[in-house]
Amino acid sequence: MSHNSFGHLFRVTTWGESHGPALGCVVDGCPPNIQLTAEEVQVWLDKRRPGQGKFVTQRQEPDAVKILSGVFADERTDGQVTTGTPISMIIENVDQRSRDYGEIAQAFRPGHADYAYFAKYGVRDYRGGGRASARETAARVAAGAVARKILGGVTIRGAVVQIGPHAIDRNRFDWDQTTENPFWCPDPAMVSVWEEHLETVRKAGSSTGAIVEVEAVGVPAGWGAPIYGKLDAELAGALMSINAAKGVEVGAGFASAAFSGEENADEMRMGNDGPMFLSNSAGGVLGGISTGQSVVARVAFKPTSSILSLRQSINEAGEEIDLRTKGRHDPCVGLRAVPVVEAMTACVLADAFLRHRAQTGGGAHLPGKVADR
Amino acid sequence: MSHNSFGHLFRVTTWGESHGPALGCVVDGCPPNIQLTAEEVQVWLDKRRPGQGKFVTQRQEPDAVKILSGVFADERTDGQVTTGTPISMIIENVDQRSRDYGEIAQAFRPGHADYAYFAKYGVRDYRGGGRASARETAARVAAGAVARKILGGVTIRGAVVQIGPHAIDRNRFDWDQTTENPFWCPDPAMVSVWEEHLETVRKAGSSTGAIVEVEAVGVPAGWGAPIYGKLDAELAGALMSINAAKGVEVGAGFASAAFSGEENADEMRMGNDGPMFLSNSAGGVLGGISTGQSVVARVAFKPTSSILSLRQSINEAGEEIDLRTKGRHDPCVGLRAVPVVEAMTACVLADAFLRHRAQTGGGAHLPGKVADR
Amino acid sequence: MSHNSFGHLFRVTTWGESHGPALGCVVDGCPPNIQLTAEEVQVWLDKRRPGQGKFVTQRQEPDAVKILSGVFADERTDGQVTTGTPISMIIENVDQRSRDYGEIAQAFRPGHADYAYFAKYGVRDYRGGGRASARETAARVAAGAVARKILGGVTIRGAVVQIGPHAIDRNRFDWDQTTENPFWCPDPAMVSVWEEHLETVRKAGSSTGAIVEVEAVGVPAGWGAPIYGKLDAELAGALMSINAAKGVEVGAGFASAAFSGEENADEMRMGNDGPMFLSNSAGGVLGGISTGQSVVARVAFKPTSSILSLRQSINEAGEEIDLRTKGRHDPCVGLRAVPVVEAMTACVLADAFLRHRAQTGGGAHLPGKVADR
Amino acid sequence: MSHNSFGHLFRVTTWGESHGPALGCVVDGCPPNIQLTAEEVQVWLDKRRPGQGKFVTQRQEPDAVKILSGVFADERTDGQVTTGTPISMIIENVDQRSRDYGEIAQAFRPGHADYAYFAKYGVRDYRGGGRASARETAARVAAGAVARKILGGVTIRGAVVQIGPHAIDRNRFDWDQTTENPFWCPDPAMVSVWEEHLETVRKAGSSTGAIVEVEAVGVPAGWGAPIYGKLDAELAGALMSINAAKGVEVGAGFASAAFSGEENADEMRMGNDGPMFLSNSAGGVLGGISTGQSVVARVAFKPTSSILSLRQSINEAGEEIDLRTKGRHDPCVGLRAVPVVEAMTACVLADAFLRHRAQTGGGAHLPGKVADR
Repeated sequence: MSHNSFGHLFRVTTWGESHGPALGCVVDGCPPNIQLTAEEVQVWLDKRRPGQGKFVTQRQEPDAVKILSGVFADERTDGQVTTGTPISMIIENVDQRSRDYGEIAQAFRPGHADYAYFAKYGVRDYRGGGRASARETAARVAAGAVARKILGGVTIRGAVVQIGPHAIDRNRFDWDQTTENPFWCPDPAMVSVWEEHLETVRKAGSSTGAIVEVEAVGVPAGWGAPIYGKLDAELAGALMSINAAKGVEVGAGFASAAFSGEENADEMRMGNDGPMFLSNSAGGVLGGISTGQSVVARVAFKPTSSILSLRQSINEAGEEIDLRTKGRHDPCVGLRAVPVVEAMTACVLADAFLRHRAQTGGGAHLPGKVADR
Repeated sequence: MSHNSFGHLFRVTTWGESHGPALGCVVDGCPPNIQLTAEEVQVWLDKRRPGQGKFVTQRQEPDAVKILSGVFADERTDGQVTTGTPISMIIENVDQRSRDYGEIAQAFRPGHADYAYFAKYGVRDYRGGGRASARETAARVAAGAVARKILGGVTIRGAVVQIGPHAIDRNRFDWDQTTENPFWCPDPAMVSVWEEHLETVRKAGSSTGAIVEVEAVGVPAGWGAPIYGKLDAELAGALMSINAAKGVEVGAGFASAAFSGEENADEMRMGNDGPMFLSNSAGGVLGGISTGQSVVARVAFKPTSSILSLRQSINEAGEEIDLRTKGRHDPCVGLRAVPVVEAMTACVLADAFLRHRAQTGGGAHLPGKVADR
Repeated sequence: MSHNSFGHLFRVTTWGESHGPALGCVVDGCPPNIQLTAEEVQVWLDKRRPGQGKFVTQRQEPDAVKILSGVFADERTDGQVTTGTPISMIIENVDQRSRDYGEIAQAFRPGHADYAYFAKYGVRDYRGGGRASARETAARVAAGAVARKILGGVTIRGAVVQIGPHAIDRNRFDWDQTTENPFWCPDPAMVSVWEEHLETVRKAGSSTGAIVEVEAVGVPAGWGAPIYGKLDAELAGALMSINAAKGVEVGAGFASAAFSGEENADEMRMGNDGPMFLSNSAGGVLGGISTGQSVVARVAFKPTSSILSLRQSINEAGEEIDLRTKGRHDPCVGLRAVPVVEAMTACVLADAFLRHRAQTGGGAHLPGKVADR
Repeated sequence: MSHNSFGHLFRVTTWGESHGPALGCVVDGCPPNIQLTAEEVQVWLDKRRPGQGKFVTQRQEPDAVKILSGVFADERTDGQVTTGTPISMIIENVDQRSRDYGEIAQAFRPGHADYAYFAKYGVRDYRGGGRASARETAARVAAGAVARKILGGVTIRGAVVQIGPHAIDRNRFDWDQTTENPFWCPDPAMVSVWEEHLETVRKAGSSTGAIVEVEAVGVPAGWGAPIYGKLDAELAGALMSINAAKGVEVGAGFASAAFSGEENADEMRMGNDGPMFLSNSAGGVLGGISTGQSVVARVAFKPTSSILSLRQSINEAGEEIDLRTKGRHDPCVGLRAVPVVEAMTACVLADAFLRHRAQTGGGAHLPGKVADR
């Protein structure tokens, strides 16, 4: 129930403000005897790290993660393994760039959480967005790295499929392309379009939205649960909790509203490896339970709220002001969200795996086999 | 953590299968001294009830709700009030229409949860979809009726904004129209188009998807919480948990991906009643916390999976079959989802209200006022 | 977090008042494919049922349980099995004996929850104690019956070890005796002492306390978890939640305060079946995790609060009154608590089993075996 | 549900091993605008700190706490206040005293959690007990310091009422005495007896148990909740989760088993300040809800498991060994448990306060007043 924890059995609690001394997370419920080093976690943090290109914020943060608990020497491998106790990870804030917040300290930046936090709490750490800063997502990525280790055979990968009004051509979708450009773009023909669009936006001091797609390949049938424990419902909640997310869809998503029943309901046949589906409108989930197909979701991100244009707002004193948000910001937060979308997907799946194992012992009942009740 | 419970402080647990003797819910955490009768709950159930038109299932269920606990005579009003103890509500299944399930008992209907339940549990109540039937949503509507009583001044209303490929014209959006036609349609010019589309679909034994919009007017600023307790994240999880939901968006949602920063970030001025926003791209939520604007969300529903066309599938024995799904079904489940979308929104908001009151005592800090820390 | 739910993965929600139409529970998280009939649940309810002797309340309740959901026909056995969906059980109240509550409706009976409920909620169902009545424990016993089915090889048994000032002689402790007398007494020499004591108490219109001991035999090593998920902490919370419980101890319990380190720390040797302990001061739990020894706990119950003596109290109007509590009451609630203590122990263990299986896959690492990491 | 988190709305997650780099906690759900500095937390940690006398472990740990998040400058006071976001606190381990663990690394020390952790996880941090070390309780004390700030007018104080076989004389009970001796002893005549007993035990390389009593004065009526959210049940679970705890009782506790109904049920009168009770057998809780009387509980602690006597045990290889536990240990862990018992009580009460405020708005309904429903 706590507001800063996520998951049921694989449970992540994050803490920290943008300009505080550090941020971090505690991962509870991780199975024991899983090899885990800080270096393995760092790999994923490096993918999310700001300061890596002109289209992301210039704040320089090494985001070096330390593991403070929950692992122990593994004598068989000279490495270290999880012990089943809570894994505490910490990332120190280095580049907090001390400055005078002046007007900003009392003002509500349009599109930001400033006003909402003030209204709720009556006090807020206004430096860099405080708790509402996207820096918090570094802790999610660290937790996601642990989740990936639990998931073993499941591959989780993300791509950007739209920036501003420019959507990719799905006929050209190639996962291998996503690592070949700075935009996680799976459509090589779209790269230059996006680059030009982002450059225009950046020069104008404006920003732009994006849509991120995530796919989990290798999820066995049977994960998730009916009603309020539905895998897609958990995923929707998790992905919508990411900063700037405004929409989530699974499988055909909003497009399925225009479908006929025939287009929607994926047919089945028996393949060489067991049951197979002839299409994936469902996005790998039926009745809230995984089917063995790839789990597919998309998340819409609004444009970065910090823009250079003068905007109308008010301040804590209730005065009307005109505000320009300076600072080191991304023109497109969606770009940096990809590793976060992947991490949240990993956390949801690790949790679903543990919950499934709890209730059923794990595994799936396959048609044609004598059920091992 | 339980799969069939929803909410944190306003907590709803539902139970029951489509063709079992009854279904129901237990609502825990309701504040005491709220007037509540079965008749008031029935009002909302009647809106959801099947058998009310040719475009919804012909199953005849009175859906008469009984309150079994948690209320007591209120001597001051001759009515009854909640006591703060769990409210158990039950709805008996009447029209289970006994029949031979034959082939269906072993087959996996495409688009349905049949295969997923089998894979997970190795056993399933195949009658009418069992636990995965949309009948479970009657219990949600009953719980939502209680939530509405807690919310007092908040108005929650839903509309259908798209059926199949036919979206309404938002310039003609009129909430008053939604009660004037059987489609919850806010655009009078669209009614005949939908009627024709649904008739075509029904005659073809096919089905069609839809998009439902919900709006909560009167939500004060300050509800919701950062990070994993975000109001929009809770809402996304809740709405995606409804049968056949495939996508959820808040405010401008997916459209915001194509926005510029200027279009996205709602500006503020001081109005006569305090802070006001000049637009509502945010959908009433910033940083996961309500701003005092209307909370707006949309949910995409896939077409009903039960269609008369012959479809390829497999059965429990692992044999390939061709299947036609007969029965009493809606051509458009989205139509019946409106009261459910409203109910889930009410439950999320009631929960957010209680959580906000727990941490802060309730209320909001308003700009220009001396904060009553 | 809900106040009327218990457990994490094996999760029980109870509802109902003493004089309402019915009471019941919803059991969520039960593994699928477990044979379960209402008759099997009834066995345990019959043990708890009032009206079975002159030393328990004369209220006549058949306590006939119905299962409304979560089970389905098992074709292989002609029986029925759990489906993994929520199991809703209901028990109708039959003997509510309508009467004029008169003064009692406004008065606070000493030792009862009347005043506390009024202070908290400002409204209460005063009939027979409402929600605070021991009738609620019938729902616990029903849930416990399901838990026992999950636990398979674990035997859970309870005994009364003290009534009033009369404690059994532990040298004469014989589990087989507990079914040979109406007091769950394991010491045959104590039966007549207790009978005389209870008769004296009953005739005086007074009441007496008791201590109940529960033992779970066959719990494998490894259940439970560190820190706040400790098996003994969960057990303490569960047992203290039973009506009239005032104390809980595990293993040597309060006596261990007077122990020396040598008396306390159970030594180990290798037995034929693996590790064995030479004593059980720990009560089967070390560091919050089961060790494979029997889990042993004791619960102290205060005397029934309803007594015939005139007692000083106040009423809702704030007036001082003298009150005599008539009605059909047990002179010793501890006697009827035995099946409830067993049921709560079963629920805690079933939950611990599922949680252990979630995190580790189940099973235990045994010394001398190559760890199957 | 996570094993290392505690509480519902005031939620504490702790992490860290005895000989890892640090330990700490994250406190989520704290109300905003509460003044809080590290110095205020340090006060309570200093009370728990080892190395303060010859009867507690000689490990030298400054236990200096740092607050890493969740607080912000309060301009009105030059101090700092909570912001409503998670409060992360960290305590570095300084005196881990590197040594060769040799035999201990593979051996199971009797009375310790070694065997249970091995059986559950197949891997464990054996240095100083790892996660099972009492060092974890430092994090509880830090969290308890925050809870105390929330509780304002409630005073929580602990005393040792028995060490080994030597119980205090309750007629001499004087809270003021508890700060006048190193044993938290409220009975001045008992101090020299305990000192002699502890010296004997220490010289013998043995250890002894103890009973700690805790009292919370100023808890208003209405906190807690029926059934599974009972204040005394929450307290029992919390206190039993403390290292070495073997029993918990509330009010008259186990003694009430020998009571008559007349002795047990506390009578009421109207006092100058409203309702008052003439005795407190209940320990301030009826039906799981506070009554306005002092909440009183006692916890039994077993003797320290580490003793110098040679003891029989086994090791990971399944070999029988004879083991002597050297190290820097307390002869009586109960002594150091007092601040931990107080802290857990504070956490339970802060949580109960927030839960009560959530459901009812806070406050209590008093007899004779027009209920402000």
